[in-house]
Amino acid sequence: MNSFLFLAAVSALALSAADWRDQGVLYLDHSPKAVMHPVPIRAVKIGEGFWYERRKVNVERSMPTMYDLLEANGVMDNFRRVSGRKEGPLHGPVYTDSDIYKWIEAAAFSLQSAPNADLQGRIDRAIDEIVAAQDKNGYINTHWSLDRAKDRFTQMERGHELYCLGHMLQAAIAYYRATGNTRLLDAGQKFVNYLVADFGPDKRPLLTGHPELELALAELYRTNGDKHALELAGYLLSGVETQRLNLKVSQTNYMFSGVPFTSRTRLIGHAVRAMYAASGATDYYLETGDAAYFKTLNTLWDDLVRHKLYITGGVGSRSSGEAFGEAWELPNSQAYTESCAAIGNMMWNFRMLTATGEAKYTDMMERALYNGINSGMSLTGTLYCYRNPLAWSGLDPNDKIRNPWYDTTCCPPNLERTLSSLPGYFYATGKDGLWVHFYHDSELDWHLEDGTPLHVTQQTKYPWQGSVQMTVSPAAEKNFALRVRIPGWSTSTKVLVNGAAVTGAKTGEYLAIQRMWKPGDRVTLEFDTRPTLIAANPLVTEDAGKVAVQRGPLIYCLEQPDQQAPVADVLLAKVSAPFAEEQKPDLLGGIVMLTHTGAAYRKPLESEPLYEPVGLSRGHTTKPVELRFIPYYAWSNREPGAMAVWVPAPL
Amino acid sequence: MNSFLFLAAVSALALSAADWRDQGVLYLDHSPKAVMHPVPIRAVKIGEGFWYERRKVNVERSMPTMYDLLEANGVMDNFRRVSGRKEGPLHGPVYTDSDIYKWIEAAAFSLQSAPNADLQGRIDRAIDEIVAAQDKNGYINTHWSLDRAKDRFTQMERGHELYCLGHMLQAAIAYYRATGNTRLLDAGQKFVNYLVADFGPDKRPLLTGHPELELALAELYRTNGDKHALELAGYLLSGVETQRLNLKVSQTNYMFSGVPFTSRTRLIGHAVRAMYAASGATDYYLETGDAAYFKTLNTLWDDLVRHKLYITGGVGSRSSGEAFGEAWELPNSQAYTESCAAIGNMMWNFRMLTATGEAKYTDMMERALYNGINSGMSLTGTLYCYRNPLAWSGLDPNDKIRNPWYDTTCCPPNLERTLSSLPGYFYATGKDGLWVHFYHDSELDWHLEDGTPLHVTQQTKYPWQGSVQMTVSPAAEKNFALRVRIPGWSTSTKVLVNGAAVTGAKTGEYLAIQRMWKPGDRVTLEFDTRPTLIAANPLVTEDAGKVAVQRGPLIYCLEQPDQQAPVADVLLAKVSAPFAEEQKPDLLGGIVMLTHTGAAYRKPLESEPLYEPVGLSRGHTTKPVELRFIPYYAWSNREPGAMAVWVPAPL
Repeated sequence: MNSFLFLAAVSALALSAADWRDQGVLYLDHSPKAVMHPVPIRAVKIGEGFWYERRKVNVERSMPTMYDLLEANGVMDNFRRVSGRKEGPLHGPVYTDSDIYKWIEAAAFSLQSAPNADLQGRIDRAIDEIVAAQDKNGYINTHWSLDRAKDRFTQMERGHELYCLGHMLQAAIAYYRATGNTRLLDAGQKFVNYLVADFGPDKRPLLTGHPELELALAELYRTNGDKHALELAGYLLSGVETQRLNLKVSQTNYMFSGVPFTSRTRLIGHAVRAMYAASGATDYYLETGDAAYFKTLNTLWDDLVRHKLYITGGVGSRSSGEAFGEAWELPNSQAYTESCAAIGNMMWNFRMLTATGEAKYTDMMERALYNGINSGMSLTGTLYCYRNPLAWSGLDPNDKIRNPWYDTTCCPPNLERTLSSLPGYFYATGKDGLWVHFYHDSELDWHLEDGTPLHVTQQTKYPWQGSVQMTVSPAAEKNFALRVRIPGWSTSTKVLVNGAAVTGAKTGEYLAIQRMWKPGDRVTLEFDTRPTLIAANPLVTEDAGKVAVQRGPLIYCLEQPDQQAPVADVLLAKVSAPFAEEQKPDLLGGIVMLTHTGAAYRKPLESEPLYEPVGLSRGHTTKPVELRFIPYYAWSNREPGAMAVWVPAPL
Repeated sequence: MNSFLFLAAVSALALSAADWRDQGVLYLDHSPKAVMHPVPIRAVKIGEGFWYERRKVNVERSMPTMYDLLEANGVMDNFRRVSGRKEGPLHGPVYTDSDIYKWIEAAAFSLQSAPNADLQGRIDRAIDEIVAAQDKNGYINTHWSLDRAKDRFTQMERGHELYCLGHMLQAAIAYYRATGNTRLLDAGQKFVNYLVADFGPDKRPLLTGHPELELALAELYRTNGDKHALELAGYLLSGVETQRLNLKVSQTNYMFSGVPFTSRTRLIGHAVRAMYAASGATDYYLETGDAAYFKTLNTLWDDLVRHKLYITGGVGSRSSGEAFGEAWELPNSQAYTESCAAIGNMMWNFRMLTATGEAKYTDMMERALYNGINSGMSLTGTLYCYRNPLAWSGLDPNDKIRNPWYDTTCCPPNLERTLSSLPGYFYATGKDGLWVHFYHDSELDWHLEDGTPLHVTQQTKYPWQGSVQMTVSPAAEKNFALRVRIPGWSTSTKVLVNGAAVTGAKTGEYLAIQRMWKPGDRVTLEFDTRPTLIAANPLVTEDAGKVAVQRGPLIYCLEQPDQQAPVADVLLAKVSAPFAEEQKPDLLGGIVMLTHTGAAYRKPLESEPLYEPVGLSRGHTTKPVELRFIPYYAWSNREPGAMAVWVPAPL
């Protein structure tokens, strides 16, 4: 911690031995605009059920094998090359350093839940290699070192220097919160100090070509009180260097940076960049309360939910530029919906939630988490999606959806860190009680903000079943508000306390149960998980005449292995017919399968003409088939086959 | 013509003073696989009507202003820079030379119809500048000269050296056929001789990164009998240099070259490249009869019409890579459908027609010509489309559809040469008579293949009306077959000769009327131009639940200025209701407008949620409106406003 001592700006929050254990995924205890304060990851134990196996595989398979792949693909050798420990070529694209940082963050989050000597050893070895590659002046980036050192900060639109630093800081903070060890944090702070000293409106211009550093700087400020870090985030978000850096509109659109964040009116450009920029801007708002940011964030969020959101919580319609499309441009087969963008969506909404307490943000987090993020990792934990399309023809044998490795391997460790940090999203404290965001078999050991110890358990088969049994046990009888989230998809919800009905539950809102809580009090939540057919706005041309199936937070899909006819040829006949639900413990890691009356064209559509006058018989007679729906996240875990989220239906 | 004398390979077809006047757009008189021989452009005079004004504007406005723009943007200065006549920077992208070549070809085609001192003067001045920039060894390309000369033929995937030569040769041939002047042709032949001498399987490897030279070489061979030129085309199409040039699959896919053309099984990659490659391969088949080419061409054509064709005749679904999409991937707003690709489609189908005599290819030419090509130029003749989407929201003020100039200005002169060469597509002779491909007020002065002079007139308001009155006047009574095309869209057609019905007309086929023709014989064709509603295969997800309107060869659309409600909010209610047709001589240069009963949502869809459970009232009550359809080609000639070809309809 010595490295901070010379910083004039280090505030009263400067690192202290007591702090690190109590900091959550976001540490908002001193954030003026935060209406809640997430509990630390270690305070929540995830029990059996939906996320248990995913998180187990993440620790046992995903993270170790990904580390081995990062090593095998030269990511660590890049650092050894710069430190002089090993000779050889530079490996990977310009942003390659970030992959190991994201991996460290993932592994560090898991250490916050449970010790793991193997992962900790890997982290420590990696940090040793990283720190050894740092310049005396604090700079660290293996791509822009040695013969490329002369080009530092000259190609900031594409250089990813600040992007990599952002991920380094996030990794460092997660590791600090797991162990109290500040070695990587000190190194990151040193780079920040260098930036603060040399860059700014009156010094050299700086640009975050790929937003990411902004949120890391805000979290650094929260961690050690370095106001310079927050100011640097504000400077990056201010976008005042457009002229000095001679940035073109096409560049600032794509980068979602380089012009004032507060000048934005819609989501455009690279989806991950836009989501990270919005996350950083929300962090900045949480610390500063700058109303221009909050106004802009609400405008962008409205653009998202009204025009640019996939039903899976994925975002980014276009492969070209990995970009947002126009309003209502939401193709299914061609959807890009990068795993990282869905994660960015969850990150942003978590921040919006902490700033507002509005459940619509938690609904969005849940939508992305269970669907568009969850689809990004195979059930084996060793194959990853970059794209998460909502339909897949299976016609192109070269189009492999899940792969063990990508040269641009941003998504795999991003998925890993999301799973590792999951317990940190479940609960937050507020000045008058506890917020309950997510449901899963679990235990909370924490305390209210007045210090009263609090133990909460959840018993539930959520999301497969809608019933949640909670016990709420303050150390002593205590009057406080328990805010339970009523999901937006639960159209009728029952809430009971110790068996007595509680009124006032509203779909898509938090229900505050203010009462004198006694140890062992029981809360029962009964959510409505009946399958629902969803229609899109007709302006979404790709979904016209189609429906999607949702059950609880899960979006379902048709996948070829389960069907009696080609996915391309089926209809959901008789919309009013009910779904049958069946527990399938041995299928795809255990799912609830939905079946519904359907029909299939007798003559495959692929043999039909492309265009034909209306009224000519197309031979579209159908035969009855049973349609079997599986959760979208579980697709592409068997032999490759066609898949569709949106299914034609006569409405 | 002296330049060819030293060429051993120049055959009996070597240039003779008599030839040039009689050569058509394609000169197929000696092509073994050609079942017909297009008449020269000068043999056909286009009278009043649909194409008259377009062609007049093309000569009077489009070509002169485009030449001025090419000058103003430095295209000619590039040549002067290389010849040393002027100093200055290099202008434009790597393929810039091709723009002036295409312009020369366009102007030369128009000289084949009628003398024009202004255009001829511009051509002659341009040729003078071009020839002065040629290397002694025959090489000519202003991008790869001076300091870049050392890099010639080292970046053939992107260099466009052969592409530019192809357009140079086409320009040279068109000018030769207009004037007998071989100055540019000699220069082009010199470059070809250099290629023949230095490149080939046993010499240096050659690649056509953008196919185009292949068709030009075939036409050169037809023009002067240079067998080396045809062999060079065959070598380029053979794609045998994949290994020597170390080409990646992604490159050969995108380029539609670099691997054997005969190994292709589907249309992929850059749409213009694919269309030009297919055109060149058809030319090669016409000269060699190589059955592997014909088989491949049929496979690709089937892929086009079954999976990848827009109803406008446009092709190329994706903006990214200007590329073909997957089967049935035919987005409307996002359609790329470059004008050049629709022109390439017409070029390819013209060649397939001459090789087979099948009317399905003429139908395709007509579809592209009247719609996806015709849309590419404004009615003023001075604004051009690069993209020709089938829907347009008008929401993005920066998305300008029609522009006077593009840095990549391939489309404007391509459109100009298509309009200039139009008379050359109307008729062809066969060994037993005359083929009639297109209908328009016009006169043919030509002869049968036995030398009998033949005069044919057409009187018609086609495509606005379906009636065509022809006179067929051989110089003397003569037994031959008049093959008239029955368009694929005319579901009931009447054919009369001198007032007496002729039987046997089949939709989408040529009707051969074999008889003793006497001077003044009258042929009457009555095509059915009643408006038709077209549905797409449901696998085209963007068109699901929608219809398109076709009348004769014209595809119609809704454009905002004509509507009573936002285009986004209307439905074509009551599919069975009839269309009203109205002549609008003062609207958009004179059109037939179609009106139909429609409905409009009372609450705009744009204010509705993105997703909603089925069964919740969406407030989708409608009010009756009249829908007014204009021909697609005429859109975007008024104030900018939304447009849609495909309109929602309850079927």
